[in-house]
Amino acid sequence: MTDAPSAALAAPQDTPVSNETIAALMAHRTIRAFAEGGLDEPTVTTLLDAARHGATSSFLQQTTIIRVQDPAIREAVHGASRQPYVGGSRGELFVFVVDLHRNAVIRQRAGASLEPLERMSVFLQGLEDTVIAAQNMVVAAESLGLGTVYLGSIQGDARAVIRALGLPERTFPLVGLIVGRAEQTPQYKPRLPRRITTGVDAYPRLEAQEEALAAYDTTVQEYYDLRDANARLDSFSTLIARNLGVGAAATAPTLEILREQRLALH
Amino acid sequence: MTDAPSAALAAPQDTPVSNETIAALMAHRTIRAFAEGGLDEPTVTTLLDAARHGATSSFLQQTTIIRVQDPAIREAVHGASRQPYVGGSRGELFVFVVDLHRNAVIRQRAGASLEPLERMSVFLQGLEDTVIAAQNMVVAAESLGLGTVYLGSIQGDARAVIRALGLPERTFPLVGLIVGRAEQTPQYKPRLPRRITTGVDAYPRLEAQEEALAAYDTTVQEYYDLRDANARLDSFSTLIARNLGVGAAATAPTLEILREQRLALH
Repeated sequence: MTDAPSAALAAPQDTPVSNETIAALMAHRTIRAFAEGGLDEPTVTTLLDAARHGATSSFLQQTTIIRVQDPAIREAVHGASRQPYVGGSRGELFVFVVDLHRNAVIRQRAGASLEPLERMSVFLQGLEDTVIAAQNMVVAAESLGLGTVYLGSIQGDARAVIRALGLPERTFPLVGLIVGRAEQTPQYKPRLPRRITTGVDAYPRLEAQEEALAAYDTTVQEYYDLRDANARLDSFSTLIARNLGVGAAATAPTLEILREQRLALH
Repeated sequence: MTDAPSAALAAPQDTPVSNETIAALMAHRTIRAFAEGGLDEPTVTTLLDAARHGATSSFLQQTTIIRVQDPAIREAVHGASRQPYVGGSRGELFVFVVDLHRNAVIRQRAGASLEPLERMSVFLQGLEDTVIAAQNMVVAAESLGLGTVYLGSIQGDARAVIRALGLPERTFPLVGLIVGRAEQTPQYKPRLPRRITTGVDAYPRLEAQEEALAAYDTTVQEYYDLRDANARLDSFSTLIARNLGVGAAATAPTLEILREQRLALH
């Protein structure tokens, strides 16, 4: 384990201001092939602590992290995700849970109403806490030279994850995360240019950015060409037209499952 | 500007494994008093680039960041937030927007259905992208010795933010963020202990953690005592019973506003 990203993960582009942390953020890429086994205990504790110390909306601390060690539970998460790299025991698997249950127990004891916990506004606060915690773990892991992959794919069957982890009402398994030693060094995947995804004082209308989008479409085609010379060369626009909303996670009855969990009701 | 957090922001506790990045994550605290003025352009560009290079769900890149420079628009965001530190021109203000509009334009051109963009599942993908981007900016800023505050408070009047920034259908202003030079060095705010907010293979039931919660309640009381000797000494449990769901952001008609924006419909 090293303190810096490996040379193979060096950032593809410089920022005007930089340091070790920013270089690591810029060097982010998803890893989908991990060495056999989990992480040592000091590393797991460090990752959990980094995750727990992010910002939390109104100090409500509405998130819980579950480390998956039991092969049967991992297999259930694998079944929900359907991604091959979730199966087996390569890398350490965590599930990040939006957790309004804990505060419901505390409020119930105090005789306070549970109605606020059923609001979309409060669910969003828990969602934010949960993603902040997960991203802190990603940043900490990558700073240690480890690889990560978010598993939004667990939404393919969130009910199965709820059952497998014994998640009570008012909780929702938002994302999984595998952290491990990378066994691949993927190309950096180019992002939409800054002028398309950022604006000053107003929403940046795509209609005013036709040339930038066309250039980016070409860049993405080149990325796929470099990654696999035999692949169909897709532009970003083609991917959005064809792939958005496709697959088990994107077609899942997520709103229905949230309601079953008594979340985001009104 | 320095590469490391200032001594006053040094982490209050060690992690078993550490480096500069992890120490900065552990040293996180919210800043609510900033020096006058925004940030220099190289720093703004760096923060935007760090935010843009986080993970993105299914490569859909469903987030947009708007930097607020116009005092009138900042005042509108201040009005929505009602937090005094949002007014004026102390620190640089960003708004992080869940953005499904851009991909709607791309799909419309390709003759693809817009229905997937109305699913809760796809909205969650955009939410995740948005919080990951925001947290990357927080981490980058703190690594440069800058202070940050998330403004979940803009949910107090999200419609006003939508109007002020000209946000189209299928977008939602999730959080604001101020980044600036800190003019305070607040105490580190203790988090719920690891045994309460993390579990192995199963949800960690609070019922089995009574002593840990009682000890934490005392820790939080001591924190408030140190922060302000004249303050009422509240435990975490008391705060949850009394403050959760209170205030403009937590009582806002968020689900209704999402529907007005054609998001999370089913």
